[in-house]
Amino acid sequence: MTEPRTGPTAECPTPRTAPRTTEPEQHPGEGHEAAILLERARAAVDPVLRAALGSLPGPMRRIALYHFGWEHADGTPAEGGSGKAIRPALVLAAASALGGPEARTAAVRAAAAVELVHNFTLLHDDVMDRDTTRRHRPTAWKVFGDTDAILAGDTLQALALRLLAEDAHPAAPAAAVRLADCVVELCAGQHADTSMERRDPGGVTLAETLAMAEAKTGALLGCACAIGALYAGSGDADVAALDAFGREAGLAFQLIDDVIGIWGDPRRTGKAAGADLAARKKSLPVVAALTSGTPAAAELASLYATAHREEDLERIALAVERAGGRDWAQVQAADRMARAMQEVARAVPDPEAAGGLLALAEFVTRRST
Amino acid sequence: MTEPRTGPTAECPTPRTAPRTTEPEQHPGEGHEAAILLERARAAVDPVLRAALGSLPGPMRRIALYHFGWEHADGTPAEGGSGKAIRPALVLAAASALGGPEARTAAVRAAAAVELVHNFTLLHDDVMDRDTTRRHRPTAWKVFGDTDAILAGDTLQALALRLLAEDAHPAAPAAAVRLADCVVELCAGQHADTSMERRDPGGVTLAETLAMAEAKTGALLGCACAIGALYAGSGDADVAALDAFGREAGLAFQLIDDVIGIWGDPRRTGKAAGADLAARKKSLPVVAALTSGTPAAAELASLYATAHREEDLERIALAVERAGGRDWAQVQAADRMARAMQEVARAVPDPEAAGGLLALAEFVTRRST
Repeated sequence: MTEPRTGPTAECPTPRTAPRTTEPEQHPGEGHEAAILLERARAAVDPVLRAALGSLPGPMRRIALYHFGWEHADGTPAEGGSGKAIRPALVLAAASALGGPEARTAAVRAAAAVELVHNFTLLHDDVMDRDTTRRHRPTAWKVFGDTDAILAGDTLQALALRLLAEDAHPAAPAAAVRLADCVVELCAGQHADTSMERRDPGGVTLAETLAMAEAKTGALLGCACAIGALYAGSGDADVAALDAFGREAGLAFQLIDDVIGIWGDPRRTGKAAGADLAARKKSLPVVAALTSGTPAAAELASLYATAHREEDLERIALAVERAGGRDWAQVQAADRMARAMQEVARAVPDPEAAGGLLALAEFVTRRST
Repeated sequence: MTEPRTGPTAECPTPRTAPRTTEPEQHPGEGHEAAILLERARAAVDPVLRAALGSLPGPMRRIALYHFGWEHADGTPAEGGSGKAIRPALVLAAASALGGPEARTAAVRAAAAVELVHNFTLLHDDVMDRDTTRRHRPTAWKVFGDTDAILAGDTLQALALRLLAEDAHPAAPAAAVRLADCVVELCAGQHADTSMERRDPGGVTLAETLAMAEAKTGALLGCACAIGALYAGSGDADVAALDAFGREAGLAFQLIDDVIGIWGDPRRTGKAAGADLAARKKSLPVVAALTSGTPAAAELASLYATAHREEDLERIALAVERAGGRDWAQVQAADRMARAMQEVARAVPDPEAAGGLLALAEFVTRRST
């Protein structure tokens, strides 16, 4: 099997010698292709998303537009920080890789549907996790209250499945079934996450933490890629390979996101550094550290149970690192990426055609560098 | 236009002379036809519902089965009190009235989807309203916590739209669009309800309370009937008439439900009498009373603001009654029923064919008698 490589493709024709931007959100090197794909995905799905949100009744619309970063809390227009559009970009890149530009165009509504599901789960997860900040702003429940944030999330799920129900493309029903199944898996993942948070850290295994992360994060990235393949008219094997690609890339993404949640730069992520530690999140690096059997693991367990001051967060982060949690997460992320590349090569042997998918997968694991 | 009447129909052929049951949930006279329709709907949709819930991952399945009354909180089987199946019965009766037995059979999955949406909103509304009792048992959030009740609700919405997405019937996509639109309307209604609860009773109008009730209750009953019509292959005008029929019947239902919430028998409804008053719900009879301009209205406003003891509930109920709230609600309910009958006669001029729909509509307004 041809070893895939990244590089200029039909999906992303910009040559490597193109002038680099100095925007802080842009990344040097191969991340540049991904940035263009993300920007193009944003441009393709935003009109569909804005029309869908615009169809909501007043109060629900206001909460949704605030959550997407398109309005301030008082209803005045905002310059969006509506997220990186990784999921819609994966739908479009998968459709393009397997079906060319026509499939990509056909999949735009489905890409918007995936983004709506993502945002529905963010709205609900923020309520459940009592997270107060999202994309550098107060979360919707902080501004509008729990009830309205839950209701707005409910409407976004409905809008997502409505977009597919009114899509006459032959792939739309199968895409809707996959997206609904994915919602169930996302909910099961969030259940596992929140119920693990309530348990004694000593009783949580690395295997169940990985399974939870796959359900919470891998499932929707896999679903995005699989839906793109469906819109390209792919057969079951290719759809399954694209799903596996997205899941592996999603797990890599989660591993890196967990690393950022402990050691990252809050100006870049919109999350405070150490926030996951302050909330005693049993994130992947933490569970890897706690189950490492090292002396640092015992120290970490003790700190997790007793240290509650702001200045303890640095000591906890250091204990996670000394117990090998940070290294494990980074090696795991690289391993997952390798598996992701194997999966995509199975369905898209031509590395030119696979370039967009690979660029996006690499982008998500390069966020912290 | 032929005046519709109730009576034996193809949908419900049992003669009036059939032996009466003495079950407390059954009603004498014309309610007997409705009871049979509800029982037949329950029998038709329960296998679909059980299969759908059975597909959920363990923890979500357990909450859903508890909520449906099919399992106790410890996971052991329960003799279901999964509700009256009014909405599935309306889907099937509408399909039958407009398309005969074949359309009824074709619409069973859609009827189950409507019931799933109903239960998704019950799960979420109970969290938001802090209601502690549902169908004579503790609500799901009381047993499993807010997070899991919200997540279980999310999965039921996904299952509902999944049932329609995998339904090959030509009406399925239009039914899914209607059901998704209905979810949005239900959420807007719940938003209106909860935000009205936070407002000063003096500032709430009867018109907005009626609009809220139509969105919260009428919308899904209308949607149920419209979906039945879609599965019968009806044109836009008949689908719209069935939607209007269900909305009017739904408003009648809500008016009676509000009357029960103040004066009803808790053994019959699963709700404590006076519960809506204790929660200071701005239900339809209360708002009608408060806006009646009578001396009793002023007394009621004062009681609503100051009387907080258990024994005040009877005085408040009496004030609502003396201000005309109870009579108004019962006259309104009858008026809505008359409008509902006009709408159904528009789409189904043959009273024999319309009998099932009329029997169900009458059933919901006879619950308190």
